[in-house]
Amino acid sequence: MDNRPIGVFDSGIGGLTAVKELSAILPDEEIVYFGDTGRVPYGTRSPETILAYAREDMDFLMKYNPKAIMVACGTVSSVALQTIKSDYDVKIIGVVKSAAKKAAETTRNGRIGVISTGATHKSGAFKKAVAEVSDAEVFSAACPLFIPLVENGYIERDNKVTRLVAADYLAPVLDKGVDTLILGCTHFPVIKDLIADLAPGVALIDSGKEAALHLKDHLTENGLLSDGRHGANRYFVSDAADGFSKVAKMFLGRDIDGEITKITF
Amino acid sequence: MDNRPIGVFDSGIGGLTAVKELSAILPDEEIVYFGDTGRVPYGTRSPETILAYAREDMDFLMKYNPKAIMVACGTVSSVALQTIKSDYDVKIIGVVKSAAKKAAETTRNGRIGVISTGATHKSGAFKKAVAEVSDAEVFSAACPLFIPLVENGYIERDNKVTRLVAADYLAPVLDKGVDTLILGCTHFPVIKDLIADLAPGVALIDSGKEAALHLKDHLTENGLLSDGRHGANRYFVSDAADGFSKVAKMFLGRDIDGEITKITF
Repeated sequence: MDNRPIGVFDSGIGGLTAVKELSAILPDEEIVYFGDTGRVPYGTRSPETILAYAREDMDFLMKYNPKAIMVACGTVSSVALQTIKSDYDVKIIGVVKSAAKKAAETTRNGRIGVISTGATHKSGAFKKAVAEVSDAEVFSAACPLFIPLVENGYIERDNKVTRLVAADYLAPVLDKGVDTLILGCTHFPVIKDLIADLAPGVALIDSGKEAALHLKDHLTENGLLSDGRHGANRYFVSDAADGFSKVAKMFLGRDIDGEITKITF
Repeated sequence: MDNRPIGVFDSGIGGLTAVKELSAILPDEEIVYFGDTGRVPYGTRSPETILAYAREDMDFLMKYNPKAIMVACGTVSSVALQTIKSDYDVKIIGVVKSAAKKAAETTRNGRIGVISTGATHKSGAFKKAVAEVSDAEVFSAACPLFIPLVENGYIERDNKVTRLVAADYLAPVLDKGVDTLILGCTHFPVIKDLIADLAPGVALIDSGKEAALHLKDHLTENGLLSDGRHGANRYFVSDAADGFSKVAKMFLGRDIDGEITKITF
């Protein structure tokens, strides 16, 4: 038994879709979440800036003595994970590897699509992770506008603007005949239905959910599960707390279940 | 004569539309530009975060001993200008007041529209600035998606996505019968033609241009114009320099005419 918390961080609020899955899969665990809402988005920035921000996010979460940290940000998981894994003495789980494994297990025709931020797309991280476990071909597309569209509430299944943008983004990947599509950014599950409508018959892989399942395996195998006797979940952000709580429900699927505190680096 | 530089800062790259106007109106002046590309956008953040960032931007530019600073960011000009004006001993010109004055002089039916970021819209800054010089009515709309659309290159005059978003944003303002529309964010001049198509007969006010004209008046009246004998323009950014130079042309209308340096706060 280990009642220390699980740390989770994201560039902003999108990582709450991973927290939603984590809470469902590991309901007895305490979560300390940090969303860098003062500097979101990461996916349009350079690898060196993404790494610098990821280090500050890690430094902050490490103060809470976590037993593991989930990097619920596809961009950091793709661009900076190896470096922070070697820099910090804690179990770190990103959202790339487990999603790649699940996609390789799921595809029947050996053609996998990945949609993500620009930085993730450029990194080729999902392609490399799939290549480590399978011979499947990977076709990747950057969908940078999905993040502001989701953050601005353009999320209804029939939203004309988001459908138009999504159709443009998905076409080159769907044209390759993929039967499996990795949602490589934690913002994307919010518009999963809309994406599914445009990609009929394609299996969608939620990278946050796969990472949560992977984390459960790790905690179980190492005897690190909590017995539920711990404090409440805590949420930290780098911009105003009230702005965060207002939109959090859209990502979490329920109201925030803990105190939200603004921090300054 | 005063050959010290003019400092210009913006949340990112959008402020280059103001530099474009400034260079045309005051071609003999040296410009030191700072774009906070590592933390853009500002317009979706809270007033306290916007002020904190604006102070860091000011601190950076003050190192170059500027004779004046142009705040080429509609959000900072709306949310934080009074505070930084009282905190720094330098002439500071924002993009709100001069645009409000020009709009008041331009309107014939006394109905002025303003489009801007969410933070600017909430601040009511343009409305207050118009009220100081005229009895015109002001109708304001937040257009948060314009910034990512512009930054992602959705800028062609007939771009379907941007037209759809713009039609939604502009409708409530145009329905009020405005004959004058202030582009209250320095990203917006890039899609001026598209906006003009959707607002036939409406005079568009470029807030960066009006601020540059105001700055020229200030320098002229106070004998602070340069004689042109100074160093080259310099550009500083908080994310990678190469990403900045690639898209700068879209905003500046020409290639960057000076060295670009990445800084770390």
